[in-house]
Amino acid sequence: MTTASICTIGDEILIGQIVDTNSSKISQALNRIGVKVQYMLSIGDDRNEIITKLDKCLKQTNIVIVTGGLGPTKDDITKDALASLSGASGYKESAEQLAIVKRILGARHIELLDINLAQAQVPNTCEVIPNQLGTAPCMRFTFEEDKYGHKAVLYSLPGVPYEAEGLLDDILEDIKKNFTLEKIIHKNIITFGVAESVLSKQIESWEDALPKWLHLAYLPNATIGIRLRLSCYGADDPERVRRMDEETEKLREILGNTVYGTDDDTLQSILPRLLQCPPEAARQETISVAESCTGGHLSELITSIPGCSKYYNGSVTSYSNSVKINVLGVNPEIIANFGAVSRECAEAMARGVANLMDTDYSIATTGIAGPDGGSAEKPVGTCWIAVAHRDRTTGDTEVVSKKILSMSASRDVNIKRFASNALDLLRRFAEQRLF
Amino acid sequence: MTTASICTIGDEILIGQIVDTNSSKISQALNRIGVKVQYMLSIGDDRNEIITKLDKCLKQTNIVIVTGGLGPTKDDITKDALASLSGASGYKESAEQLAIVKRILGARHIELLDINLAQAQVPNTCEVIPNQLGTAPCMRFTFEEDKYGHKAVLYSLPGVPYEAEGLLDDILEDIKKNFTLEKIIHKNIITFGVAESVLSKQIESWEDALPKWLHLAYLPNATIGIRLRLSCYGADDPERVRRMDEETEKLREILGNTVYGTDDDTLQSILPRLLQCPPEAARQETISVAESCTGGHLSELITSIPGCSKYYNGSVTSYSNSVKINVLGVNPEIIANFGAVSRECAEAMARGVANLMDTDYSIATTGIAGPDGGSAEKPVGTCWIAVAHRDRTTGDTEVVSKKILSMSASRDVNIKRFASNALDLLRRFAEQRLF
Repeated sequence: MTTASICTIGDEILIGQIVDTNSSKISQALNRIGVKVQYMLSIGDDRNEIITKLDKCLKQTNIVIVTGGLGPTKDDITKDALASLSGASGYKESAEQLAIVKRILGARHIELLDINLAQAQVPNTCEVIPNQLGTAPCMRFTFEEDKYGHKAVLYSLPGVPYEAEGLLDDILEDIKKNFTLEKIIHKNIITFGVAESVLSKQIESWEDALPKWLHLAYLPNATIGIRLRLSCYGADDPERVRRMDEETEKLREILGNTVYGTDDDTLQSILPRLLQCPPEAARQETISVAESCTGGHLSELITSIPGCSKYYNGSVTSYSNSVKINVLGVNPEIIANFGAVSRECAEAMARGVANLMDTDYSIATTGIAGPDGGSAEKPVGTCWIAVAHRDRTTGDTEVVSKKILSMSASRDVNIKRFASNALDLLRRFAEQRLF
Repeated sequence: MTTASICTIGDEILIGQIVDTNSSKISQALNRIGVKVQYMLSIGDDRNEIITKLDKCLKQTNIVIVTGGLGPTKDDITKDALASLSGASGYKESAEQLAIVKRILGARHIELLDINLAQAQVPNTCEVIPNQLGTAPCMRFTFEEDKYGHKAVLYSLPGVPYEAEGLLDDILEDIKKNFTLEKIIHKNIITFGVAESVLSKQIESWEDALPKWLHLAYLPNATIGIRLRLSCYGADDPERVRRMDEETEKLREILGNTVYGTDDDTLQSILPRLLQCPPEAARQETISVAESCTGGHLSELITSIPGCSKYYNGSVTSYSNSVKINVLGVNPEIIANFGAVSRECAEAMARGVANLMDTDYSIATTGIAGPDGGSAEKPVGTCWIAVAHRDRTTGDTEVVSKKILSMSASRDVNIKRFASNALDLLRRFAEQRLF
């Protein structure tokens, strides 16, 4: 099996000032083409450490993907370390990357400096894969079998996440040319609303009966729910693929309506399907949002899906009571009698925003995200969520609501849980209504 | 110098289905107390691999922090591997963690299963640091000098981010008891609106004159801007600390109003200070937001700051033109004549939301986040942003606006850039007005 390691370079990672998102993007891509990522490593901007550790990576895996340390400034030393590791006798200019550097800085009206021009200079031991989105090119270093006991290829990418991502397709093509790859298939079943331990109990006997080449993993995520990932090794065998499909179907049956999607689905990405009314029809119902404690996050989740303007009209973030009353039309007596964090207020907010924005559905949240505030009766982590649907024919509005109690002291975690539970309430309500 | 490595365990990391955020949180904490993180490593759920790699980590660094693989399900094998690595002769029960397991599952009304009870069982070679936020405890394994040539301590934490974070303070205290630590101080100067290469040119001669123990790094971030981090090694020496303060001051002077903050400041965290009017006064001016293309992200950024309800009234996400017209009061002729993505529309949205929510300031965004849409004249990545301020005494409203052209094809990157540029426009406008 062709193996890979991913190495991110930069002191900023080691002191924790940035989160490495490149490694997960790169490993997703490698897994897709059947390259097994053996490990990921982060090291600092230290020339000797870079050389030593990359040398080890090349010994242990066929492919090494390096990101970071290619910027124009003095603390970026990856290129120099790679020149030394590959035994380069000097540097050469990449005419293609030089043209890109000039184009990018020109478009931004940034003065072209020597340090910018130097970005098109690369060790004479490498091949350049041009980076259309940034000034530093991707460099490929190939090591023949006599050096590491196996053919090894190292790709060096810039650390800026969208630049690294933009280069991935070219790198995958290049890898396919250089290596013969085994096939792995992953399938995901996405669930929301049931705890990991309960889920695992439900599927225990099914899981125990799986063949060795079919592997199950649990991936809990506050926004998405629990993803159950089935991985089929040796997927060139059509019998294995057939069995995998069969087992996936069995899993869905056991879990029932806890399952809301597959593969990369999220509670927000399934909205276009969910809002088709009737199912398979062209008409999309519309939706609006009223948020208090989630502060815009629910709207952000919905608008993260391209094309959402077909069904999403908009939202009101009503952070003050005056906005709840004057913009959403919540009766001030509701707030006086029940408080802003109450079933009554959530339902009034949902009705109010649907009227204001003239939508079929609406979602509302009102709660206490913390870390401060709350009371014994309504502690930090309490949130009321409501979903409303107005029937276009009869004009009747149906409202459902639910109280969430998140056990976290983290504002960020609470906001995420409130928003995803609100989307799940919409999902369950719409599925029940439609199917 | 006391060194550490951080090792995250889980196939879900290696196939890229989750992004590892634990490592950065942990390394931030370690750096704060003067422990140098030498490297970070991610490996899969493979018993032998876990044992081999952790053994190497213990050889190379004094402290090893392990996260992940402690869940109740079959694919979580870290505990078993650690039992073997530490030569445990069996398991023991942590009464304290067992009580927590019962309390947490009880509060969530989840049935207590054998796999839950097993989470309080730990190898008899470790000490338990109880985890109040989750069911799996933190385990500490201590290895005396004869095993690795130096004293080595391994901490195993659950992989759930807020649980791992919740344990960090206890772990730092424990490390301080076990090791004598060198002192490192980091200072950050936060800038927005100038490209990395231009910035680096501006400070080149200053940077060249820095002493060896004072190290500068550039940390670009789409939401925050470019953070310039100065790290002072050997900060027990008061002369070094004095020099560091002096150099930080010089740096601020060179960069002028490109600098908006220090340390962990963000464009949203400085709002409380920015909205004090007059400066040093108790009165906070208020703000509201109207978003089109940023879809709720701007509001989410503002509400990520605890206590923002003092100055933030709320927002309207006007994803459809009808909401722009009917809720925000944008004149339909503006949209007909100039389009929704125009200076005129952005300014009308800013005026409209300030009136609707009765605030001193307001921010508006309208643009094309992509990946689809746009035209030759208004390509994907175009956004108009506007900031309005109403003078309470005269009733006059002043509006400034600006066009942003983000060069990215990524919806997510564009949305982040639009929102941060909008906050920066507010910042520059408010600073100019006030100071």
